[in-house]
Parts: sequence; structure tokens; C-alpha cells
Amino acid sequence: MITLTSDFGSPYPAAMKGVIRRHTDAELIDIAHDLPRGDPRAAAFWLRFVLPEFPPAVHCAVVDPGVGTGRDAIVVRAGSHVLVAPDNGLAMPPARALATDDADIEIWTIAVDDPASETFHGRDVFAPTAARIRAALDESTDGTSGAADSEAVADALDAMDDLEPASDPVDLVFPEPSVERDDDGDAAVIDGEVLAIDRFGNVITNVPGELVRGRDWIRVDGDLTPVAETFGAVGPGDRLVTVGSHGYAECDVNDGRGDGAFDLRPGDSVRFVADNVSL
Amino acid sequence: MITLTSDFGSPYPAAMKGVIRRHTDAELIDIAHDLPRGDPRAAAFWLRFVLPEFPPAVHCAVVDPGVGTGRDAIVVRAGSHVLVAPDNGLAMPPARALATDDADIEIWTIAVDDPASETFHGRDVFAPTAARIRAALDESTDGTSGAADSEAVADALDAMDDLEPASDPVDLVFPEPSVERDDDGDAAVIDGEVLAIDRFGNVITNVPGELVRGRDWIRVDGDLTPVAETFGAVGPGDRLVTVGSHGYAECDVNDGRGDGAFDLRPGDSVRFVADNVSL
Amino acid sequence: MITLTSDFGSPYPAAMKGVIRRHTDAELIDIAHDLPRGDPRAAAFWLRFVLPEFPPAVHCAVVDPGVGTGRDAIVVRAGSHVLVAPDNGLAMPPARALATDDADIEIWTIAVDDPASETFHGRDVFAPTAARIRAALDESTDGTSGAADSEAVADALDAMDDLEPASDPVDLVFPEPSVERDDDGDAAVIDGEVLAIDRFGNVITNVPGELVRGRDWIRVDGDLTPVAETFGAVGPGDRLVTVGSHGYAECDVNDGRGDGAFDLRPGDSVRFVADNVSL
Repeated sequence: MITLTSDFGSPYPAAMKGVIRRHTDAELIDIAHDLPRGDPRAAAFWLRFVLPEFPPAVHCAVVDPGVGTGRDAIVVRAGSHVLVAPDNGLAMPPARALATDDADIEIWTIAVDDPASETFHGRDVFAPTAARIRAALDESTDGTSGAADSEAVADALDAMDDLEPASDPVDLVFPEPSVERDDDGDAAVIDGEVLAIDRFGNVITNVPGELVRGRDWIRVDGDLTPVAETFGAVGPGDRLVTVGSHGYAECDVNDGRGDGAFDLRPGDSVRFVADNVSL
Repeated sequence: MITLTSDFGSPYPAAMKGVIRRHTDAELIDIAHDLPRGDPRAAAFWLRFVLPEFPPAVHCAVVDPGVGTGRDAIVVRAGSHVLVAPDNGLAMPPARALATDDADIEIWTIAVDDPASETFHGRDVFAPTAARIRAALDESTDGTSGAADSEAVADALDAMDDLEPASDPVDLVFPEPSVERDDDGDAAVIDGEVLAIDRFGNVITNVPGELVRGRDWIRVDGDLTPVAETFGAVGPGDRLVTVGSHGYAECDVNDGRGDGAFDLRPGDSVRFVADNVSL
Repeated sequence: MITLTSDFGSPYPAAMKGVIRRHTDAELIDIAHDLPRGDPRAAAFWLRFVLPEFPPAVHCAVVDPGVGTGRDAIVVRAGSHVLVAPDNGLAMPPARALATDDADIEIWTIAVDDPASETFHGRDVFAPTAARIRAALDESTDGTSGAADSEAVADALDAMDDLEPASDPVDLVFPEPSVERDDDGDAAVIDGEVLAIDRFGNVITNVPGELVRGRDWIRVDGDLTPVAETFGAVGPGDRLVTVGSHGYAECDVNDGRGDGAFDLRPGDSVRFVADNVSL
């Protein structure tokens, strides 16, 4: 299996699939091709959420604002999974979610003849590399790729001519919120950050859901906001804080867009304060 | 084969596919993931239109405004087809289209440990259930699932531990229009309802196409409107009534949106009157 | 393999897939279903760009403003590839890109019982025809369809009962730009045309990239505009001319829409003038 992720829209990913079909008949599964444009951080967030659901696979992920600037193309082994991506950090958060620990992650650079060419790297670099890796893995494991253990995957990648160990790959780490607790040990002031906005305008923060769940109200950047388990708990157009399926606190609007109502963008700071705390 | 339908957008359906791939290699076909949000009626309309084109399959359909409220999750057998869906009625119109008659429909409730949990039920309940049913069917029929007769499907579902006969499943029935006929027996006044709006803004009513087809003009809520076989029969921006591929009368605008021009929304009443009838 | 292309959005293509699955288990790959509505020229442009990446396949492409007007439905063999499409020219530019030369292209008309019916031709004509061709090819080549040479494909199509040689198929040829050169032989005045607008608003012209690449500035319809290899070379909201992965000069805006900024639409003329030429 090869999964495909990009911010290309259509029909560009189809060109990548055509190239892959010249190398292998492996199943192709689209993760998303409408990710926020040129935002490796959003791609990292969503891939960390989705890829751990999959059995071992090759994941080709291209959100690449640096195309044409000489950035490297990399291959990351995380356990029995392989990611093929530009070297801008997007592969690292999902890799850590897929690997048992940091020692279970290895990174190679893909040798590209003219790394700064103006070609379509998704089609000309990432897709064929993913296809060749898939074919190599299937050959080394007699096609039972799902059962490949991480050692077999590592050996197959080591044997590939155009991969060499990466010397200084770019990392991307999501920030942790800072939490001040009150006398009872409850979270009272939480300084978090916006990780991503989904296509419905829901503002996904880095604040773990357990810090807000169970409250009735919380202040978001000063404004008292209901905390609810479902959108329907507030009226249409009303704001709420809820916990998404990724486990993080979200700033949302029922039947509306949270990014507009809360005036929040990816990377913005956001402060949650327990409603009984005076500031 | 498993088909997938939702209002999730991307990348959530990919998480469902990952989960399914841990259970079965069955082919996955997307019906749509951009259905109107939280509208089981629209989902029912489109599934009734699309699913009868398919050979017997497992259909996982999640449009679920009641997630987190304790609504049941159900499995519906309709002939040799199986639908896995929330118990909000969306599965019933397609089930009736897939079954030979009402006696050919059976409904089970899926036992869920904590039905009101805040998890992502598409990923945590519906996808794994669809995958396990698919695997069970493939096993019981040696993989020739397309040829499974409805009895074999029923037996396989009966044998599943976590399914129990549903006691009072939610139904959803599309209304029939009321028709007053003139002295010649022609439909003169038709009181219908809007079933769905498609992504182009075309207003799909419950009025059978044969009641409007062949006329030159018809009054829609009082306004005289041309009836045409193709959009091009009227000028850009002009209104028309036409018959869609689903067989129903639509209120459309050439190169524009019918929902805005006719001021119609799903569930609204709409009256068609023969142009020679004075009201 | 069958590829599917349309301007249908969802869920209509799923109905086509259901029909195909009644005929064949061949792999289905979506090229795009969000192509500009009713624009065969845009479809031709994108298919010419994407299809040559694929190994031999059957390509079902339905962008069909003439549905219901009695236009023919055709099958085009281009080398070992087969296109199934309405007879409006959209198949011809990709066919020429897939064939070795014009003699390597053959065209048949599909016999349709009632060509002007109001049915959903994607589902009722094009999908089943593509499926039956795929099945016939797979049978004639023992399933190793990828290896089918063009002669075997031609023979299989000739043997199909409902195909007859097309007498006067519609062609569609993209215009070539006219180029005036200066005393040094450099392109000084280029009169081109807009071929397509992509979903980001980038204006794709018919001007080959080599005529603009390497310059610092060029006049676009009189306005001096920077020529750059990447969007990031100009500020957010600023205009630029760049060369896309299809090899043509584009009129774009960094973090914005080129179609609005340059006021250009498909089919419009656009004049590029070397910045040192006085006009």
C-alpha cells in the first residue's frame, strides 16, 4: 500500500498515480489533497492523526513550499512504516507517532540529479521514489508487506542506491502548552497555541482535552465560553470549546466558523483561563 | 467491496480506511465525503440514487448529527447488500431501493461499549464494524462476495456476536407530492417538497419528472417558469424547471444557483401549477 | 485499469463506478471530478497533461455540455490507450499526446439506442462502454493489459459490435502563439492565448516556457511583470510570470489569484513583450 497526501488539489495527484503505476501495482489510498497550501505544519498535524490507523505502508506526503529552493527530499523509516517527503519537518511528527521510540526512526536523503529544477517534484521525485521503495519492500517480503518487520524495512532501504543517511534533517515539533495550576491542582491558566484550522473553520489547539473537559465554562482570551461535548449544546452561530477526535481542545462555532469568531490562525497563541479565576 | 459515504471532508475518511485495512483487503470505493453536513435526509436521497448501481456490497455511511447523544448504530441487510450507519433513518430509503420488498430488509443494533462517548464513531464504530462484516461475508462465501445471495448474507450477520435485532429503528420516508388533476386528468396543481440541493444549487423536489416533462411552462410558487430538457435551452442566469437523472423535477438556473433564485431549501414546500390554470 | 474524469463533483462518479463493477473488477483511478463545468477544452488540457504518465489504460472522460443534443459518443484508440468520451474534441489533445503519430489514432462511434435521451450518459453510456472495453481487452490479453500492444487493442475494439468507425469526429486543437523576434533572434512580441485556469486562479497560457524563462521582467498586456521560478520570489499579493510543470508560461499572483489580477479568462488573448522593446 502507498498512501498519498498533498496540497495539490486535482488533477496533479493523478499524475503521481500514473507514475507509480509504471513501477508497481500496490494499492493507492488518498489521505487528503486539499490540505492547507504550503503549510507543512498542518500536514504534519493531520498525518500524525491519520497514519497511526494504518497497517505498515509507504506514505508519500508532499506539502512543499520550498520546491525549487534546493531543500532535500527525504525518506523516513518509522517502525515498519516509510514516509517519503520534502525535508521540511512535516514527516517528523507522524514518524514519532508511528515509531516505538526515537531510536526506531531512520532518515535518508534522496539523491536527486538537479534538486533545484523547476519540475513537478511530486511526480518526478516523490512518487517514483515511493513506488520504488514499495516495490523493493514487496520483493524483500514476497509481497506480504503488511507483515514486514521494521528490521526488514530498514534493510531494504539501506540497500537502495539513491538513498544516503541524512546528515541534518529538518525537525518540526509541536509546542506544549504551559499550565499554571491553582491550589487544588486544577489547571487554571493554560497558554496554548493554534495547531491547525480544519476545513470547517474549527480552531484546533495544542491544549489536551482533559484540561478543559468537564468544565461548564472557560475563558478563551478573556471571553467566557461554554465548554460542551457536542455542537448542538449551543445555539446556531454561538461559540463553544469542545474536544475533537484528536483529543485537543477546539474553539468552534455551531453552524459557523471558529477561526473567524475567535480571530485565531495557525501559530497564534491562545489563553484558556478557568472561569472562576480572576485575572 | 466496501463503499464509504460521509459528510467528513478530508482527511477523516482516510482514518476510517486505515482502520478497515487492519481487518480486510476488500476494495474501498468512496461514494462522497462532501455531503451536506449533519443532514441524514440528503445522505438518504443520494444513497438511494447511487447504491442501486452497485453489485452486492457493504456500505458504510456516516452522516451523524446525533453523535455523542446515545443514538444507536445499526446494520441493515437489504437483499444481498449491507448498510452500516447511525440509527437516524439515513439507511432506510437506500435499503428499500436495494431490497426486493420490505420483508427483504433486516435491522440489527451494534453493541457499542460506551455509545455516548465523544470518540470519532466513523473510525471507532462504523468502519471496524463494516470491515468485520465484510471479512465475515468473504469468509462465508469464499471471497466470491458478489455472488452471495441474501440468505447467506443474513446468516453471516446473524452469526455475529455484537449484533442484536433492532427493536425500534428510526425510519425516514420521503414525502409524496399531492396532485390535483384537471378535467382531462392532467396534473394541474402539484404540492411537493424539496428533497435536496446539489452542490451546483439545483433544487431537487419530490415531484416525479413525468408530471412536468413535455410542458412548455409551469408556475413554480406562482412564477411562470420554462420547462426544458437542457440548461442551454434558457439564457445564462435564467430559471428553468428540468428533470434530473434521478427522475425528479428540479428548479434550476442556467449558469447559476437555483436555491438562491427560487429561495428554496431542503424540506421547503414547493407548488407547481399548470400554466393554464388560474389560481 | 480504468481512469475516470468528469466535471460531475460527487456523488455522480460513484454511480459510474457501481455500473463498472457490474462488468469488471479492473482498478479504478480518479483523475479529477472537479474540472471546470461544461468546458471540454479545459478537460483536454488537463488530460493531455496527466494521461501520458499512465501505462496503457482505458480512460473514461465525461465533460459534456452537449448531453441531450444528439452529439455522438466516441471511442478513441491512441497507441495502446483507449479513451471513451463525448464527441466534442476533448479526447483529441490527450490522444495525440498518447499516440506515436496521427496514424496511431483510430476513432469509433458508440451505437446508442436513443442518443438524445435525458438520461445520465456518464452512467448509462460512457461507464458501461469503458467497462466492456476493459473486459474485452483483459480477455484478449489474458489480463496482462498493461502489456497489450496497440495492435491487440485495435483488434479488440474492431471486434466490438456496437462500435463503428467514426465518419467525422470533432477535433479540438490548442492554438500556437505567434512570435515576433528581434534582431538577435530573441522572442520580442508573443501573442498567446489562455488555455486554462487552475483551481488556484493561475492563468495557464499556450506560450512555451522557454520563451519567457531566464528573463527578469516581461510585459503582460502592457504591464511590466517579474519573471520568477518560484512564487516566493515576489511578495504576497504581487503578480509574477512563471513556468508551470506543464511547461507553459503562467500569469500568477503569490498568495492570490492570477485570473482576477490579470483579468484573463480561458480563450482570452494575452500579449507578452520583452521589457526592452518599445511598443
